[in-house]
Amino acid sequence: MEQKKKYTELWELGEFRLIDLLTENNVTRHKSTIVSIGDDAAVVRYDGKKATIITTDLLVEGIHFDLTYVPLKYLGYKSVVVNLSDVYAMNALPRQITFSFAVSNKFTYEALKEIYEGIYQACEQYNVDLIGGDSTSSRHGLFISVTALGEAEEKKLALRSGARPGDLICVTGDLGAAYMGLLLLEREKKVVQQNPGVQPDWEGKDYILRRQLRPEARRDIVEVFHANDVVPDAMIDISDGLSSEILHICQDSDVGAKIYEDRLPIHDQTRQMALEMNLDPTIPAMNGGEDYELLFTLPVEEFAKIKDYPDIHVIGNITDKPTEVDLITRDGTAVPITAQGWNSYDEKPFEE
Amino acid sequence: MEQKKKYTELWELGEFRLIDLLTENNVTRHKSTIVSIGDDAAVVRYDGKKATIITTDLLVEGIHFDLTYVPLKYLGYKSVVVNLSDVYAMNALPRQITFSFAVSNKFTYEALKEIYEGIYQACEQYNVDLIGGDSTSSRHGLFISVTALGEAEEKKLALRSGARPGDLICVTGDLGAAYMGLLLLEREKKVVQQNPGVQPDWEGKDYILRRQLRPEARRDIVEVFHANDVVPDAMIDISDGLSSEILHICQDSDVGAKIYEDRLPIHDQTRQMALEMNLDPTIPAMNGGEDYELLFTLPVEEFAKIKDYPDIHVIGNITDKPTEVDLITRDGTAVPITAQGWNSYDEKPFEE
Repeated sequence: MEQKKKYTELWELGEFRLIDLLTENNVTRHKSTIVSIGDDAAVVRYDGKKATIITTDLLVEGIHFDLTYVPLKYLGYKSVVVNLSDVYAMNALPRQITFSFAVSNKFTYEALKEIYEGIYQACEQYNVDLIGGDSTSSRHGLFISVTALGEAEEKKLALRSGARPGDLICVTGDLGAAYMGLLLLEREKKVVQQNPGVQPDWEGKDYILRRQLRPEARRDIVEVFHANDVVPDAMIDISDGLSSEILHICQDSDVGAKIYEDRLPIHDQTRQMALEMNLDPTIPAMNGGEDYELLFTLPVEEFAKIKDYPDIHVIGNITDKPTEVDLITRDGTAVPITAQGWNSYDEKPFEE
Repeated sequence: MEQKKKYTELWELGEFRLIDLLTENNVTRHKSTIVSIGDDAAVVRYDGKKATIITTDLLVEGIHFDLTYVPLKYLGYKSVVVNLSDVYAMNALPRQITFSFAVSNKFTYEALKEIYEGIYQACEQYNVDLIGGDSTSSRHGLFISVTALGEAEEKKLALRSGARPGDLICVTGDLGAAYMGLLLLEREKKVVQQNPGVQPDWEGKDYILRRQLRPEARRDIVEVFHANDVVPDAMIDISDGLSSEILHICQDSDVGAKIYEDRLPIHDQTRQMALEMNLDPTIPAMNGGEDYELLFTLPVEEFAKIKDYPDIHVIGNITDKPTEVDLITRDGTAVPITAQGWNSYDEKPFEE
């Protein structure tokens, strides 16, 4: 249907472009604002040596989580962890969080109490304090907003913009498992809807489910950096997928990258689930989101200090060719990497 | 309809009781956490003299604002101001904000741009930096989450818990106008719905409308405190209504209070609108929310330092009788003050 174009729909822009446009004229007034919009977290420092790291995430029912299969306790846990991951991605240590929610009246006190149990578990696990928040009602569904505060010396911050040619590109843990967990949960949800009474079979799929439902942030890796006096040149957490994140680093650092397909760490369950669904396992590894692993770059001599740590994998290297961000496939072909990360505005509009 | 009680509905608890229950076992692990849940804002300090103040608010379409009469630019402005007000209520100066939103696909880029214009206006007006946030889609409606950061020396903080017997109770500006503005807007919305084509008549009602739609935070008053080296014993901003706020101060400070009805500052337009709606003007002054004025207590000798400032009104005094928080009416009767402030869980459930 042809019509005169007057307004711009959000799905035409996508999240990153939308934010770029909305913030293109944003000005910084205070010298206490050290890092503003555009990294995993913002950084402020009023006085003293320690800077305050701040990051915030919104989680929306029906967009980020589906209460038909997400246990409330896990939801509380995950909503904290995804924010802490952004603090770690600055090479900083999270210390405090605020937790806000809006709920419809179909939620009971007991349901909220379960969510809070998950929050308190995360606070204990990651040694952070819950210090505030806001609560209100909503007309439809559950909305969660978490803000995390952390501390770091300014000189130890790892931004997205510091990658240098020659740096090794490293990733922690393994990739694509959370996404395959999501696909599995969505598949089984449909099966159960179509065959009431059928019980999903999770046998041999516990790892990918846990990665989706109850992810962890890489506190251990940041502690390894601190213990070994290593500051990555650039770092980002993998929330939207490796492709999207390496592009962020390369764009912000004005460098290129080569990622080697045969170096991508992929868990057996991820690989198996992908094959079961007729997917090349490289696809979830490159484009699946929500792994909350750390992607970082550093010089070879710095890598030497942490190379014996078991869960860090070299997957490529930074080059001086800013327009070339390539995946080198098993047969040696260079395939340009494009962002296929998760984008909540991706879809065409649904009716309200 | 009788049924076995198993779950607790949120409207049975109300917001304050709900949060009390959800956070009753909350522990503080870090000495950097200076003020946690329970004041206008939380306070953290990692090192140095300056503490970081942090506060956050959720604004939900259909609960906090009605887009049939709230201009988007004003909404952006107000969503920032209500957070800055909480920072000022700590006797601190706001420096940075984050702004997050979830929108349904019925919102266009142009609509969001208007909201951001309001945000930038507030940033300029109050000298704060926009440093981050999150954006995502929602299934229904618009959700806004703002977090404000501010700075203060720890010894200059004004908490809710510091009121002492003998303190004067002061309030800035005037009370009840924002609430009467809301009632007016709701009334006119109904009129227009029932008589399409009819134009609302705002003649002589500009003040109460502005107070509802585009409130300001009392930056000027905090600057007066700082310039005169005054630190109120206790301070809170009036977001839920004077009754609710004076009860917070008295409960947290373990004191009583006498508020004198004839001292309540009420604007002519507020009074007139109340009378037009057959309301005693004392009711919106005591129980209307969203004035974002400051309520504070301080000794007579401290008050002397700021008494020439025009917009500060003494409305009562703090007593040593914690169970007695009274309104002294014009005829001298002491009427116990009870919280009638706004509560988003107040109503019985609506269907989803």
